[in-house]
Amino acid sequence: MLDHLNFELITPTAAVHRKLHGARAKCLQRLIRLGMPVPDTVALSAATVRAIAGGQQPDTKALLEHFGSWPVLSVRASPVMPDWGGPGTILNIGMNRTNEAFFASRLGSTAAAALHLKFIRSYAVDVARLDDEMFDIPNLTVENALSAYEDETDEAFPQDVEVQLFNVLKSMARAWEGTSARLLRMSKGAPEDAGLGLVVQRMAFGMGKGESGSGVIQFINSDSGDAQEVGRYKPQSQGRDALSGGENDTMFLTQDKRGPSLQESKPDVFNELCRLGEVSRTGLREEMQIEFTLEGGKLFILDAVNAPRSARAEVAVVTSLANDEIISREDAVLRIEPRALSELLHQQVSPKAKRDVFARGIAASPGAATGKLVFDSFAAQTAAAQGEACILVRRETSPEDVRGMHAARGILTERGGANGHAAVIARGLGLPCVAGATDIDINTKARTMRGADGRVFSEGDVITLDGTKGQVLVGAMPMVEAGIGGAFRELLTWADEMRDIGVRANADTPEDAEVASLFNAEGIGLCRTEHMFFGEDRLTVLREAIFAEDAEDRAAALSRLLPMQRADFRDMFRIMAPRPVCLRLFDPPLHEFLPSTRAGIVELADALDMSAREVQARVDDLSEVNPMLGMRGVRLGITVPEIYDMQARAIFEAAIEASSEGAVVVPEVMIPLVSAKREVEIVKSRIDAVAADVMSETGKTLEYRLGVMVETPRAALRAGDIATHASFLSFGTNDMTQMTYGLSRDDAGRFMSTYVNQGVFPEDPFLALDQDGVGELLALASERGRHVRAKLTLSVCGEHGGDPDSIEFCRSLGMDYVSCSPYRVPIARLAAAQLAIRKPLEEDDVYEFPEDDGFVPL
Amino acid sequence: MLDHLNFELITPTAAVHRKLHGARAKCLQRLIRLGMPVPDTVALSAATVRAIAGGQQPDTKALLEHFGSWPVLSVRASPVMPDWGGPGTILNIGMNRTNEAFFASRLGSTAAAALHLKFIRSYAVDVARLDDEMFDIPNLTVENALSAYEDETDEAFPQDVEVQLFNVLKSMARAWEGTSARLLRMSKGAPEDAGLGLVVQRMAFGMGKGESGSGVIQFINSDSGDAQEVGRYKPQSQGRDALSGGENDTMFLTQDKRGPSLQESKPDVFNELCRLGEVSRTGLREEMQIEFTLEGGKLFILDAVNAPRSARAEVAVVTSLANDEIISREDAVLRIEPRALSELLHQQVSPKAKRDVFARGIAASPGAATGKLVFDSFAAQTAAAQGEACILVRRETSPEDVRGMHAARGILTERGGANGHAAVIARGLGLPCVAGATDIDINTKARTMRGADGRVFSEGDVITLDGTKGQVLVGAMPMVEAGIGGAFRELLTWADEMRDIGVRANADTPEDAEVASLFNAEGIGLCRTEHMFFGEDRLTVLREAIFAEDAEDRAAALSRLLPMQRADFRDMFRIMAPRPVCLRLFDPPLHEFLPSTRAGIVELADALDMSAREVQARVDDLSEVNPMLGMRGVRLGITVPEIYDMQARAIFEAAIEASSEGAVVVPEVMIPLVSAKREVEIVKSRIDAVAADVMSETGKTLEYRLGVMVETPRAALRAGDIATHASFLSFGTNDMTQMTYGLSRDDAGRFMSTYVNQGVFPEDPFLALDQDGVGELLALASERGRHVRAKLTLSVCGEHGGDPDSIEFCRSLGMDYVSCSPYRVPIARLAAAQLAIRKPLEEDDVYEFPEDDGFVPL
Repeated sequence: MLDHLNFELITPTAAVHRKLHGARAKCLQRLIRLGMPVPDTVALSAATVRAIAGGQQPDTKALLEHFGSWPVLSVRASPVMPDWGGPGTILNIGMNRTNEAFFASRLGSTAAAALHLKFIRSYAVDVARLDDEMFDIPNLTVENALSAYEDETDEAFPQDVEVQLFNVLKSMARAWEGTSARLLRMSKGAPEDAGLGLVVQRMAFGMGKGESGSGVIQFINSDSGDAQEVGRYKPQSQGRDALSGGENDTMFLTQDKRGPSLQESKPDVFNELCRLGEVSRTGLREEMQIEFTLEGGKLFILDAVNAPRSARAEVAVVTSLANDEIISREDAVLRIEPRALSELLHQQVSPKAKRDVFARGIAASPGAATGKLVFDSFAAQTAAAQGEACILVRRETSPEDVRGMHAARGILTERGGANGHAAVIARGLGLPCVAGATDIDINTKARTMRGADGRVFSEGDVITLDGTKGQVLVGAMPMVEAGIGGAFRELLTWADEMRDIGVRANADTPEDAEVASLFNAEGIGLCRTEHMFFGEDRLTVLREAIFAEDAEDRAAALSRLLPMQRADFRDMFRIMAPRPVCLRLFDPPLHEFLPSTRAGIVELADALDMSAREVQARVDDLSEVNPMLGMRGVRLGITVPEIYDMQARAIFEAAIEASSEGAVVVPEVMIPLVSAKREVEIVKSRIDAVAADVMSETGKTLEYRLGVMVETPRAALRAGDIATHASFLSFGTNDMTQMTYGLSRDDAGRFMSTYVNQGVFPEDPFLALDQDGVGELLALASERGRHVRAKLTLSVCGEHGGDPDSIEFCRSLGMDYVSCSPYRVPIARLAAAQLAIRKPLEEDDVYEFPEDDGFVPL
Repeated sequence: MLDHLNFELITPTAAVHRKLHGARAKCLQRLIRLGMPVPDTVALSAATVRAIAGGQQPDTKALLEHFGSWPVLSVRASPVMPDWGGPGTILNIGMNRTNEAFFASRLGSTAAAALHLKFIRSYAVDVARLDDEMFDIPNLTVENALSAYEDETDEAFPQDVEVQLFNVLKSMARAWEGTSARLLRMSKGAPEDAGLGLVVQRMAFGMGKGESGSGVIQFINSDSGDAQEVGRYKPQSQGRDALSGGENDTMFLTQDKRGPSLQESKPDVFNELCRLGEVSRTGLREEMQIEFTLEGGKLFILDAVNAPRSARAEVAVVTSLANDEIISREDAVLRIEPRALSELLHQQVSPKAKRDVFARGIAASPGAATGKLVFDSFAAQTAAAQGEACILVRRETSPEDVRGMHAARGILTERGGANGHAAVIARGLGLPCVAGATDIDINTKARTMRGADGRVFSEGDVITLDGTKGQVLVGAMPMVEAGIGGAFRELLTWADEMRDIGVRANADTPEDAEVASLFNAEGIGLCRTEHMFFGEDRLTVLREAIFAEDAEDRAAALSRLLPMQRADFRDMFRIMAPRPVCLRLFDPPLHEFLPSTRAGIVELADALDMSAREVQARVDDLSEVNPMLGMRGVRLGITVPEIYDMQARAIFEAAIEASSEGAVVVPEVMIPLVSAKREVEIVKSRIDAVAADVMSETGKTLEYRLGVMVETPRAALRAGDIATHASFLSFGTNDMTQMTYGLSRDDAGRFMSTYVNQGVFPEDPFLALDQDGVGELLALASERGRHVRAKLTLSVCGEHGGDPDSIEFCRSLGMDYVSCSPYRVPIARLAAAQLAIRKPLEEDDVYEFPEDDGFVPL
């Protein structure tokens, strides 16, 4: 028998701890401290509950003594974190023939019998694990319920309150130990050995004489976070009945023309609830949802949990709490999970919508969109030209599809992973994307797509993509708009004041730069200048350059691209000025710009006045076994220098144009895929020469910075050499991860889930920076680079730049900034601020929430 | 005017130095020290020659004083290394009207006029840069030659000996400074600022009265190195005339039934030459080729150079010198350039053959072969089955072609580099290969190939591949057989006694193991176990496994491969026992084993009783964007564990079988493409389980070692972790280089030559290990691995394992062995011995040839 000390009657001064007794127990203590009318409650520690699960008999007699002569109780789960789940609440423990009779006199026999019957049923189902259907009996009464129970179990229904209570406790304790419950809570971050606290509470009866009933109230709108009394009240009910009741038997809380309300019928109760709401908001520093019961007119507060809310509402709540000086701005910033912001940045499928899912894939880019199905880039552009929303479906996307991706509202692919081409481009464009939906079957000839369940959709059919959840839905869905309103901006302004590492955006076009600016990026950290070539007119000219016979012809073709690139760069400089813009010179292999289909080849042959055979031969010539490791980046810059010459000229001429408007434009030019110092020297000397030419032609002076994208392991190892010629190094962690692991992100999807599930990799290294391997290369490179050049600017411009853990790592290496997709900039800003708050200056210890600081992390 | 001290009359004690005066000057001093009858010779230092080239006037009067009253001289080039080239010798300087008259009385007027005329012509051509055709005059005499000269130059032919000599010296000095001469000698390793010495020698006249003439003699056969007097003698001649003369006017040296010989006509002279040959062999510790002149019966030795010889002859010479105790065994080992050995291991095109080259490519695998052209693997196998030699021509090869490559005598590809698939396989098979012959044009439909010059060859036409030179030749060529005879074996046995790092071979089949054993490899360092699957029968079964519906079907198909792999492994263990065999588990992506052509897909569909569409879909499913970085190696081992299970069982059963024959077989099992410790743990636990099963089934005990192939940068960085589970680490430097640079060896060919020519990379990092980048990873990994496990076995098993510089690096890291293609094993053994001699123990200073140690590196 366990020591009765393991039962802790909750008083303002009792030793109740969240880690021992769970969040619910702790919260109830706080409500009591705030003077709320909470019925007597006893907390059982996780150790006690674990012992009970193991078959030990608690001292139920001692437990019951806490409730004096009041023998009817509820038991609720109290895990350390509310989202770890736990067994459902059991009410009315203690009801038996004797007590029914006892309560009949106080509540009326109908209510007493109803309570008794409710307990019998929930005990049968939750404790004895019987099927509730056994109570499908006409004119069900306590008596025939008891008989049914006895028939089923060959045992009489327990009349002893101690036995009832022990069995309830044991049943709940054991439910917690079940495998599926454990896996579920571990998926929410619970440790494998997480324990469960329980709270035993004296029942307040919402059924019975006088004004009795129960309800739930909160003081914010869950979607918007705006102040509003929300909830239901149901006379003659208990628990959370009011929430599941229909409109006929429940009441509105506030005055409502659709029906009766608590505000009208019991204004004193309503006002008291509002007062208690204010007390809890101030005292608990949170917006709570309160469960209350009226027992013959007397108000009891049984429980409170954080009011449920969208990410958008959460931002509004913390901002409002800070503005009301209930919490500090730092606390407000700390309370928002940075990743949750991404939900705010995009339109989402309404949580109330009914979903008809016909395929699932990887949630590759958040947000939702509805549109007509199209199967190629051309159809997408046609639809867009006609003002029709469309969803582009491809087996997988390639740079040829980028124009179509720009025209579409969302992207669905059968192949590819969270960092494949489709995903990266979609995130950059802020488009929802479901990638790797392997259960769809595309028939490009018939222009149809079969879903996982066999339904077939044709071009023009309307579908909805949910890129947040990775679902593909039939038809149009109601949407919730993006939530980047005042509170969002206010909170991020606070974050900007706190953080100590810069945040830039990756932006490839003036349109991207506008988004980056909207999200207050402190500059462009990566402009993939080749993305500008995907415009129809530009692609044709670029292809001419690729097919040029010699350097002279090539330069001539490229000179036609010059004004277009110059205009793009000038616009980006204008949009961002005086913030810096870092332009990465042409990077991908040339074959990415050539058609891969027969039709595309014929079309190109027409355009170039060549035979299809010749075009095909050139395409074949340029094709590569491992394009990722092929003729791209600086290798092109050295072997086909005309491209970089043209780009450098476009950059410098654009900078002079934009500077002449008064802004100070200092372009940053970045060389990709470097693996040796000599590559930098060669490219630098040509670029310096172009700059000198431009200056002498225009008679203007020009400042610029030249840097290197460090994305090969060798560039990291040789960063000391390379930094002698570079004023900045920016780590391309996507490629660095690919090369360090020997792992193509395009091909890794096939086994990454197996790998992560089996714990081979703790996480997908394309999502969370691998600090042990890739990170060591970053650390080595940072140290070696700064050793040679103390003021070397260091940054990360891969996808990891928007990942909070990766930002933490970059900050620990002393990097100057991170750069990420525009739509991840807010996340990075917030995450960076949290890091600065948690680990200011040189402090190395991990920040932990103080146990009793008054902040309720429920 | 330069100080006359810069002219050094060569005496036994004169201050003549190779670095200052050149190799020829030094060699002449040695001949003089040995008492040879060398005419008076004066050495000009490189500084003097450079000043002359710059226009300074030397004190020719002082120079001439060294020759007293004898005014006729020769000038020869004397570079520091003989193979750096230099201007041709000029004879008879000093001949003018006066001297002609003087010599007419001593030599006869005909000889004197001939000498004078010879000088006029060579001065006109070499000094005045005139065209020799101007002397195409009927009845050419001194007088009309002098007129022709005057007509052409508007100047009289110089009569002043000082003027003649100055102009000759200046002309030779300036020829050395020319751009093409400089590039040529730099390609032989000369520094950019290498200078030229000159030697001025008193002429001995082989034309004139009495027994006069000149000749060349050496004492070895240049092809075999066997002792033999070889050369020609020509009466009434000078210089090297004897070598260019016809059979009618030259004499054999030794008695010969085809005509007169020096041995018969002048036995005393012949015997004296043989004596001097022996003196020079012993004194110079080399086999020399001696230029001699008889002047009225008196013998003069004018010059000596190392006797020209094949690599095979060089081995015979140094072995013989060591056996005669003229040089030490260490010297013998040091004298052979390891890379030169590869010429001995293969049949070569005879150096005397006339070549008709129709295409050139990369010399990807040495040796030569003649055979009929075939355009696919099937045709190659058919030809082989009919006993016909064939040359396989492919655009590029893939693993599908391996069977055809086995059947062919040589491989020619249009694409691919020195480390592409074709090259690597060909080197492993010891087949000649010319890869990346981009100037051929293959028409696979017509089964024809167009050469660089437009000639078209059809299937069945006979061609010859020269993989040593990278040439493709029309027709059959005479061949020189491989030279791995007694001297070769003897020398390598000495090398084995000296070296202190192990040499193993990469061998994938029992046949390869035989070759490895022939070349005395100390074990197999890398057996790519998947190569055994390319047999016709095996490939089909493997494909069944790939197409299996589930793990059970897959295991069933694989179980049919088990006996085949077991038999291969057992044979390899038997061949190598008691030497170790390291077996790398299955590595390549599965799609490499599937057909890529339509015909192959249809054939496979037939074999598997599936529709071609289904087969195509599966092939598409498995195809990868970057196969190098995809689903291969340990990733397959973890996601499709049945393959490794089968292989482990085959290895252990084979080891037990082979052990039962008395040998001690301790197989080494190697896991490829590891990037995380957990991968090793997972595979290790399955392999240990298989071993336990096999032991319990057979009742035998079994020892084995488990190790990891370190080929990703991450595995190198995490070598400390990984070594906790590995008893050896073997560096796969090919893949490591690819990943460290972000550079696919299959695609690098396109720009590697540009890169090396522009000095972006000092060398192709696939040929010479990149010590700064890849090397640092190897060093880090070695240190971290040994820190965790002091007795960790370390090795390199990439292509670099056979590269002398890379071996030096591996040895400096304390590696236990290198492993390379069987045909590179002799090279590695020799290179390793040289390292041990040059840097014994801890000595870190680079070995240099002592300036005056008597060893002539001419």
